Amino acid sequence: MVKAAVLGAGSWGTAFAKVLADAGTDVTMWARRPEVAAAITDHHANPFYLDGIELPSTLTATSDHVVALDGADLVVLAVPSQSLRENLATWAPLVEPDSTLLSLAKGIESGTLLRMSQVIQEVTGAAEDRIAVLSGPNLAREIASGQPSATVIACSDHERAKAVQKACATGYFRPYTNVDVVGCEIGGACKNVIALACGMASGVGFGENTNASIITRGLAEMIRLGAALGANPATLAGLAGVGDLVATCSSPLSRNRTFGAHLGQGGTLTSAQAATHGQVAEGVKSCTSVRALAQRHGVEMPLTEAVHRVCHEGLSVPEAVGLLLGRRMKSE
Amino acid sequence: MVKAAVLGAGSWGTAFAKVLADAGTDVTMWARRPEVAAAITDHHANPFYLDGIELPSTLTATSDHVVALDGADLVVLAVPSQSLRENLATWAPLVEPDSTLLSLAKGIESGTLLRMSQVIQEVTGAAEDRIAVLSGPNLAREIASGQPSATVIACSDHERAKAVQKACATGYFRPYTNVDVVGCEIGGACKNVIALACGMASGVGFGENTNASIITRGLAEMIRLGAALGANPATLAGLAGVGDLVATCSSPLSRNRTFGAHLGQGGTLTSAQAATHGQVAEGVKSCTSVRALAQRHGVEMPLTEAVHRVCHEGLSVPEAVGLLLGRRMKSE
Repeated sequence: MVKAAVLGAGSWGTAFAKVLADAGTDVTMWARRPEVAAAITDHHANPFYLDGIELPSTLTATSDHVVALDGADLVVLAVPSQSLRENLATWAPLVEPDSTLLSLAKGIESGTLLRMSQVIQEVTGAAEDRIAVLSGPNLAREIASGQPSATVIACSDHERAKAVQKACATGYFRPYTNVDVVGCEIGGACKNVIALACGMASGVGFGENTNASIITRGLAEMIRLGAALGANPATLAGLAGVGDLVATCSSPLSRNRTFGAHLGQGGTLTSAQAATHGQVAEGVKSCTSVRALAQRHGVEMPLTEAVHRVCHEGLSVPEAVGLLLGRRMKSE
Repeated sequence: MVKAAVLGAGSWGTAFAKVLADAGTDVTMWARRPEVAAAITDHHANPFYLDGIELPSTLTATSDHVVALDGADLVVLAVPSQSLRENLATWAPLVEPDSTLLSLAKGIESGTLLRMSQVIQEVTGAAEDRIAVLSGPNLAREIASGQPSATVIACSDHERAKAVQKACATGYFRPYTNVDVVGCEIGGACKNVIALACGMASGVGFGENTNASIITRGLAEMIRLGAALGANPATLAGLAGVGDLVATCSSPLSRNRTFGAHLGQGGTLTSAQAATHGQVAEGVKSCTSVRALAQRHGVEMPLTEAVHRVCHEGLSVPEAVGLLLGRRMKSE
């Protein structure tokens, strides 16, 4: 029997805590805001981030991380990637010595260009084989609604991946294990940038062929970057690469896609932000760190480069699309 | 300067003939029905298969294959896969000796289990290095509307692939060359079966996560089959695999997806056929030949197997989805 702490009560943290509870795992959530914790514990709901979903009555939450972490042998990190380091600094002293640290965060840390598992290792001092990552075609709301989905749990220690798999397997949520942590993290870090590009093209008025071409060429970039960092290309052809990418780029609910579409229709970063509930899409930040990581390793990522230039260097979307489609004829 | 004959005036044949003409290639189309040929030559339109699209004034058509094939150094085969052999038998004696035979047909021939390039080789006696195939995320109507798209032209003779590339490259149509004919053909043959499965899941009411999971697991099957036949997995991770698959499985216009959705909503093969303009979706036929090819090579294709059982052995869609999602937990 596993005791899990889910740290972070956004839509994905809440949906994954529900999965764990539905799988029979004992779960305590931590929410930064006491009113979110109270809604989860008292009303079995999270109207702030996952409105309309009934949570299991066995699921409780607290705004005190000491309570959440007490005795937890599975620590699920479900805060945004750019705030993971700061949060972890507070939590690290309370993490149980042999517990598994499972990252749901997706991204490359600005400045350091570290993957999330590397940030976890650096801040907590945990050995690599204690750190697992979860990634796949996992739109939070669909999973919270009990719709069938598959995912990947990667850890260099395969036995540990299997233990996490067991803790979260339900009739509607099928986890597959993998030992390729780097591949899973690169897929998750790159997909939002590609979803922004898909949104831009759709905003300009292009259809399914263009969308599929962008997804395919984005995947090729992702595989090149992954290979340079030691990932297995098969991981990126799997659920944590193609799967997550297709779900993110196809969903009309995807914030990155919607944000990109607004830019493609001639909007500015500011107006796009206003149109998407005041939040800057994750891809706007991550295109810069993914690009920097690619440059450090000498990997060509023209699609990421184009998205970066649109978001941060004033290139227009039609110019960016022209750049991408006008590349010289060559072999695939 | 290339002289091309496009044999077949369905939506894709017509759209590709337009691409060739827009690229400055001299094109004559062959249409089985004289009224289709007359509409193309006299009215620069094909209201039968591509209504509302204006065709180039340089594009002419005939219902006499002798006229179309006369002096053609690029012969484009754009008839349905299951009628290719019969048509080719008539055309073969008139094909110029060193011309390139370019296949747009996608599928595995029933009974013989041959790929289209193998059928072409068998019927015409042409050497393998004269046969090229074209495949990618190429919804005909979008291309005919001038929307940007990429594609792959594969031929074991790379110089010949480059000549075809040059004959059809336009501002909106970007062909990439490849030498992996088998990979391109396997992608095209498998995708309609997977689109049927995506349609079934959507008909049952499942969303983007399920759709992306099916695409990913379908891709894995496709890569396994391709590898067994000597294809390069990278081809299937590219435009002719992932690209074509994503476009076909995402488009609300895809006949296979729509057909599957009808089955998922409880319809029968007969009612699905009535709901999709009286035609049986390509995937309904190809699931049987793809499955047989997989069995011959000892390749496991559970998704194709499930689609075959729904279409031809009376399995219900909910049972099929349960089978697919309920497979035992394992590594990816």
